[in-house]
Amino acid sequence: MLTIDQLTIFCKNKGFIFQNSEIYGGLSGFFDYGPLGVELKNNIKKEWWKTFVQSRSDVVGIDGSIISHQRVWEASGHVSGFSDVFVFCKKCKKPNKVDKHELQKAKCILCSGELDKDNSKDFNLLFPVQVGADNPTKAYLRGETAQMIFTNFKLVAETSRLKLPFGIAQIGKAFRNEISPRDFLFRLREFEQMELEYFINPKDVNLCPHLKEIETLKINFIDTNSQKSNKSHKEITIKDLSKSIKLPWLAYWLGNQYKFFLDLGVKKENLRIREHKKEELAHYANACLDIEYKFPFGWKELQGMADRKQFDLSQHEKFSKKDLSVFDENEKKKILPYVAAEPSQGVERAFLAFIYDSYNDDKKRGNIILKLNPKLAPVKIGVFPLVNKLNNEAKEIYDLLKKDFTCIYDTSGSIGRRYARADEIGVPYCITIDFEYENNKDVTVRDLLTTNQIRVKLSDLKETLNKLLNQEIKFEKIGKLIR
Amino acid sequence: MLTIDQLTIFCKNKGFIFQNSEIYGGLSGFFDYGPLGVELKNNIKKEWWKTFVQSRSDVVGIDGSIISHQRVWEASGHVSGFSDVFVFCKKCKKPNKVDKHELQKAKCILCSGELDKDNSKDFNLLFPVQVGADNPTKAYLRGETAQMIFTNFKLVAETSRLKLPFGIAQIGKAFRNEISPRDFLFRLREFEQMELEYFINPKDVNLCPHLKEIETLKINFIDTNSQKSNKSHKEITIKDLSKSIKLPWLAYWLGNQYKFFLDLGVKKENLRIREHKKEELAHYANACLDIEYKFPFGWKELQGMADRKQFDLSQHEKFSKKDLSVFDENEKKKILPYVAAEPSQGVERAFLAFIYDSYNDDKKRGNIILKLNPKLAPVKIGVFPLVNKLNNEAKEIYDLLKKDFTCIYDTSGSIGRRYARADEIGVPYCITIDFEYENNKDVTVRDLLTTNQIRVKLSDLKETLNKLLNQEIKFEKIGKLIR
Repeated sequence: MLTIDQLTIFCKNKGFIFQNSEIYGGLSGFFDYGPLGVELKNNIKKEWWKTFVQSRSDVVGIDGSIISHQRVWEASGHVSGFSDVFVFCKKCKKPNKVDKHELQKAKCILCSGELDKDNSKDFNLLFPVQVGADNPTKAYLRGETAQMIFTNFKLVAETSRLKLPFGIAQIGKAFRNEISPRDFLFRLREFEQMELEYFINPKDVNLCPHLKEIETLKINFIDTNSQKSNKSHKEITIKDLSKSIKLPWLAYWLGNQYKFFLDLGVKKENLRIREHKKEELAHYANACLDIEYKFPFGWKELQGMADRKQFDLSQHEKFSKKDLSVFDENEKKKILPYVAAEPSQGVERAFLAFIYDSYNDDKKRGNIILKLNPKLAPVKIGVFPLVNKLNNEAKEIYDLLKKDFTCIYDTSGSIGRRYARADEIGVPYCITIDFEYENNKDVTVRDLLTTNQIRVKLSDLKETLNKLLNQEIKFEKIGKLIR
Repeated sequence: MLTIDQLTIFCKNKGFIFQNSEIYGGLSGFFDYGPLGVELKNNIKKEWWKTFVQSRSDVVGIDGSIISHQRVWEASGHVSGFSDVFVFCKKCKKPNKVDKHELQKAKCILCSGELDKDNSKDFNLLFPVQVGADNPTKAYLRGETAQMIFTNFKLVAETSRLKLPFGIAQIGKAFRNEISPRDFLFRLREFEQMELEYFINPKDVNLCPHLKEIETLKINFIDTNSQKSNKSHKEITIKDLSKSIKLPWLAYWLGNQYKFFLDLGVKKENLRIREHKKEELAHYANACLDIEYKFPFGWKELQGMADRKQFDLSQHEKFSKKDLSVFDENEKKKILPYVAAEPSQGVERAFLAFIYDSYNDDKKRGNIILKLNPKLAPVKIGVFPLVNKLNNEAKEIYDLLKKDFTCIYDTSGSIGRRYARADEIGVPYCITIDFEYENNKDVTVRDLLTTNQIRVKLSDLKETLNKLLNQEIKFEKIGKLIR
């Protein structure tokens, strides 16, 4: 099985991810996206935004600033409560970060040695900064994007004329001064979040009219009782989940977010939903469930989904002395909305899951195949002349296609070597210009998953590729397989 | 004429831009994007990335982290040299930020009073942060995205198998602790950059083979001699510009970036290129020209374009003791590349220029019209039922379209009022479902710019809208105008 270290090396060699400031020895917990990584990341963000913002009539987006007012983080509870326990290992002397509720049972994450619990201390994870030259103001790098949604809540609701229930979404960086960043992209000090706060009238907390749209979806579920008795997850429907947790809005949003990963090709045996135990809940949460992914280092949180109640809006009302309630037309009164669901997804964890899930070391082909969904693939099309004599024709086709698709042009080595290189970075379709092109004005199109090839006329090429990439037609339906 | 304060209010009321942390009195120099703002910003970034990265064979992208190693900023010269002069006004007592070379002639920016020059001091604009709990490391929020391109240069060149000349581009946040942030989105403490470093073999500094592709483009130019004698700009070609500045790569990239704004609809009389005077040049620059825009507060930098020589790569070689040169196949030797052009564009300045340039207070229609290019428009399609009785039919069409386009659905007020609201946020096409729909299965499509309307069959609607939005057909060519 692929280890996380092997995946780290693969991501570096192919230009997906580099250690930040590598030439200076690196900075722990920070990574840079290379040429393929930035395209894959942008595609993940684009699909999420399209699915949960642009194609929904009840969700709008925002993009708040990273440096933000210290009162925001006092109100949110992060200044006083957003801390981990910092404790040294008695054996290897290295610092450890431990969740508060796990301190008594924890061992050193590096050497499994005993921790010096008597000398533990709280360590706040926010990064403070000083703003301004004259009499500087203390501010913080945001510890989560969610707070910018709450502070802008009233402005957004009014200027966009929104009626409950509705959601506000945001994609952007967040920063946590982790004591021990680790596991490649899993626990970082700088990362990106895709978050959505779904606001309802508090009287509707048990009533989600959309639930039926997703209720038949099957998911793997592990509830708190199973965790206590060490039972593994079982397959249930979203309808069952809703009954089990008694929070239909959470069930609805969990179903939709779970489906997002399935639709983009993540294997269903690698996904499950886990219910938080009471002692795990964050200070703002009424309930929380995670979508977990089976990473190389075990089942871990891919996405968190909390019910945040009215906690944040009422805190900001208290600290800002502003009225953040909205007028409900039906009830003819002002309502302080209730956050019935908060899908909170780390972009890097999604990135890691997609790349790990699609990685295949294919013994038959003798190379790696990255079976990424075409919507996520960083490079959509490879263009290869069969021989150097056909370079001009191939270059013309490449120039034509690169206006619409992210393409690579490769003339180096045998065709087999070029297909292998394309497989390794997940190029879904490769086009080869061969000697038949001059007579027939057609090219071969090769499918990543099967290595099947068909011939397509140049005049149909763009449209065919568009349909293939949008998964509107099956490869085998386009024309006769030539091999 | 529209003032910057009026534009600020417009942007708030329509949900484009909010002051950050407004409920806590705001944090100076920080803004949040509202629902329309985030879509417009994302569209600007998408067009830039598509034009300068995805559709070019010689440019790749990266995305580096914001918090970065302190050695990066020592090597770049920012720790020692990235400072402004901080000086109080003798009259109003407020702090002023002054460029070093302008200290002797500057007056207070707020009251035009005399500055207390004898008590001025340098103020470094980088934001430092402490990373880690145990023995924390000093790091900085990046002051420009460019440095992540230089520190990753060798890794990118090798993993992407790039051959000189080539470019590396990046879009991301940068932070500068400005002494006096001002002019809405123009001078911020947190902002986003779209930067590209174009690397060449130093022997090719006078030879840009691509120049001919853009040499006939006409631009407004103001050279250093014109500035000394207070002459205004004159219209010349990129070919003339190249001759005048004797740096063909700069001329080539200036032409392409200038064209980017023209192609997206910015009025040519509001753009010009200005050559920096020697005393204005940054510590790393051999030459620099700005693309300026005629903002409400005068001609100001929209984009900077420097020739950075080998400055950055050689500094990083010195500080990291790593070899950053690349092997040149033709010369059969190692070369330290030369940055022949660095287009450096602030996203917020582009945002400000696009929104200001497209803003029209139309007396005839009696409302604002935001004449944004359809590619940039935050909402592409408005869907309106003529009367409530047609709500179901209209909602079905809205549900069909929102899978592909960012749409609004509006049933509130008269059709005229709904068109006006759509005009004000720059919706290029509005669809009305009227009583003819039931018999003919067609709807009206209204054009933002002219208010002209045509009827389009529902079966052709998606394709027609796609072509209109991609500017592949003219509105008047689609069918008979009905008004």
